[in-house]
Amino acid sequence: MSAELAKQECQACQVDAPKVSDDELATLLAQIPDWVPEVNDGIMMLERVYKFKNYKLAWAFANKVSELAEQEFHHPAILLEWGKVKVTWWTHAIKGLHKNDFICAAKTDQLL
Amino acid sequence: MSAELAKQECQACQVDAPKVSDDELATLLAQIPDWVPEVNDGIMMLERVYKFKNYKLAWAFANKVSELAEQEFHHPAILLEWGKVKVTWWTHAIKGLHKNDFICAAKTDQLL
Repeated sequence: MSAELAKQECQACQVDAPKVSDDELATLLAQIPDWVPEVNDGIMMLERVYKFKNYKLAWAFANKVSELAEQEFHHPAILLEWGKVKVTWWTHAIKGLHKNDFICAAKTDQLL
Repeated sequence: MSAELAKQECQACQVDAPKVSDDELATLLAQIPDWVPEVNDGIMMLERVYKFKNYKLAWAFANKVSELAEQEFHHPAILLEWGKVKVTWWTHAIKGLHKNDFICAAKTDQLL
């Protein structure tokens, strides 16, 4: 399921692009089971924390996520600490979740 | 003042290392005026947000901070988003601020 999502491409996203509906949310979340929806400042986002056994591995992963962000023209928040990386996807233009965010979450999982 | 601090080196930090006192805190903060003390989960930390005009510049700066962290054997939280990097220094072993954190904050400023 996640692999199918990861094959898709981000669409250019406008201010009037549709947020995912509640039904879509449930269906899409089922495809990326390690991601958690979190509401920050009233904006729903997708978060996942990846753990690593040292700093260098975490750092290398953070850089892979940055490469993905530049490829997709879609940029998450990447929080790098010793041994862990938290990635948060949301769509700034619509202040919420677009299908793009689920596609990018699935692509992030494939970077591991 | 900041330059003097940046010349110093991080000391290996044990669980029983001293947190900075309130007097030291005031003196040290005056040397890194762009840094803000923030209490997160009961732990005092030093935070600064650096702004950049695009993702690549922010990303490059985040990598410089990671290089510094590995050099100093002291690792901050680095939050990379489009056009900005938030760096947060604190000393995990003592759950608070050690002089090392001020030294590393001053060194971070010099990476710009």
